[in-house]
Amino acid sequence: MRVSSERTDSRIILALDLEEDDPQTLQEKSVRILDDVSKCICALKINRQLVLTLGLGGVSSILHRAHEYSLPTIMDAKLNDVEHTNAFMMRSFLQAGFDAVIASPVTGWEGGLDSVFSLARKHEKGVILLIYMSNPGAEQFYSMMVRGPTPRPIFEHFAELSMQWRAQAIVVGATRPEILRRVRDIVGPRMAILSPGIGAQGGDPRTAIEAGATYLIVGRSIYTASSPSQAAETINDSVRKVASHKCE
Amino acid sequence: MRVSSERTDSRIILALDLEEDDPQTLQEKSVRILDDVSKCICALKINRQLVLTLGLGGVSSILHRAHEYSLPTIMDAKLNDVEHTNAFMMRSFLQAGFDAVIASPVTGWEGGLDSVFSLARKHEKGVILLIYMSNPGAEQFYSMMVRGPTPRPIFEHFAELSMQWRAQAIVVGATRPEILRRVRDIVGPRMAILSPGIGAQGGDPRTAIEAGATYLIVGRSIYTASSPSQAAETINDSVRKVASHKCE
Repeated sequence: MRVSSERTDSRIILALDLEEDDPQTLQEKSVRILDDVSKCICALKINRQLVLTLGLGGVSSILHRAHEYSLPTIMDAKLNDVEHTNAFMMRSFLQAGFDAVIASPVTGWEGGLDSVFSLARKHEKGVILLIYMSNPGAEQFYSMMVRGPTPRPIFEHFAELSMQWRAQAIVVGATRPEILRRVRDIVGPRMAILSPGIGAQGGDPRTAIEAGATYLIVGRSIYTASSPSQAAETINDSVRKVASHKCE
Repeated sequence: MRVSSERTDSRIILALDLEEDDPQTLQEKSVRILDDVSKCICALKINRQLVLTLGLGGVSSILHRAHEYSLPTIMDAKLNDVEHTNAFMMRSFLQAGFDAVIASPVTGWEGGLDSVFSLARKHEKGVILLIYMSNPGAEQFYSMMVRGPTPRPIFEHFAELSMQWRAQAIVVGATRPEILRRVRDIVGPRMAILSPGIGAQGGDPRTAIEAGATYLIVGRSIYTASSPSQAAETINDSVRKVASHKCE
């Protein structure tokens, strides 16, 4: 992702989470947007909307196209099941051509994410851990204070787990810059932080990068724009000055 | 589910989470098992393995068959995403014919599960909340002590949320009877508790019912048996005596 980001001089991960009842329309729209923005983004994230509507076969051909543009691909599965279900999904996503899969640390290690990490390692792919969501209600849970020698919010515990478990990257919502800042402090400068919630959900690209995000996950503000590539470039421009000081 | 459970005199929810690469083989196997056990179970739960392999079209025909047997159907989605993705999935599952969908309270209410509950109410369907998982690693998270006037584990907080949010039922792993007992204390006698982890994961049917489970979620111990219906009946027999004292 870093190589790809330097090549396209972009910090944007395009989130494809369009909703269309007709699979063919969805497939064509997705590819059209990807083609349009391929030079202004550094990676592609696919959401469950596409998997549910297109199946993994349809998704696979979009991944193939992303790879032709040398863009790494991420499945936003937020894996949170027991071992045999997680492992099945992980295998299926890797077979379909994904380079990394997002998982939820809530699942715990034993009989939860252990098999997900071990499959990723075997295939030299990545696991990305969800540390803090971008929706308003996320606070109800991710900021809960847990007991310990020093009481601290759950997300800080998750940030530490991401290093213990050697996740390739983590996800922290862009809607709470103070949380981004705190997580960056915990994980240090080398961990890639992917930050969703830009635009439609209210997160500001520049503020997120300044607070410690490495990459910005952007969906609706790009793909609903009359010119997706122009919308992406506007975001790229707004963070380039900040980002140039923060290359990981 | 209660009506169905009284009719078949069974507390078993069949979990279909078979893994087959070939969709047709998977579809046929799933239907064959369902046909075999239809009189010995009280509901059908479909896992993501089936959705990923068969698509919602294929799954829908299995749900149709379950409804012919008057069995309610549950999608084990463990929904844990932001609003537009959760809502899309919920709509898709309801359209496919599911009667209830499992969601994770970790997502929070606002911009998380609010739309899931409101879609369920609109269509008179159910939301089932995941309170405690059945895998060994679940403890790392679900038993974390959170601060408050009285410190308590996260799962107790989730159990209370399930009543506040008016969930139709909740899920608590059968592998930890003491947790089942505690959750039953919190939610009172009327809330249905669905308990996975029976058999393959080590949970004991009788112990789970005695500890407060209303229904037992059973997958591999039934569908890998040479006679699935006989395996189901053995479980039914083992809990009938206990269960007769505990009808909700």
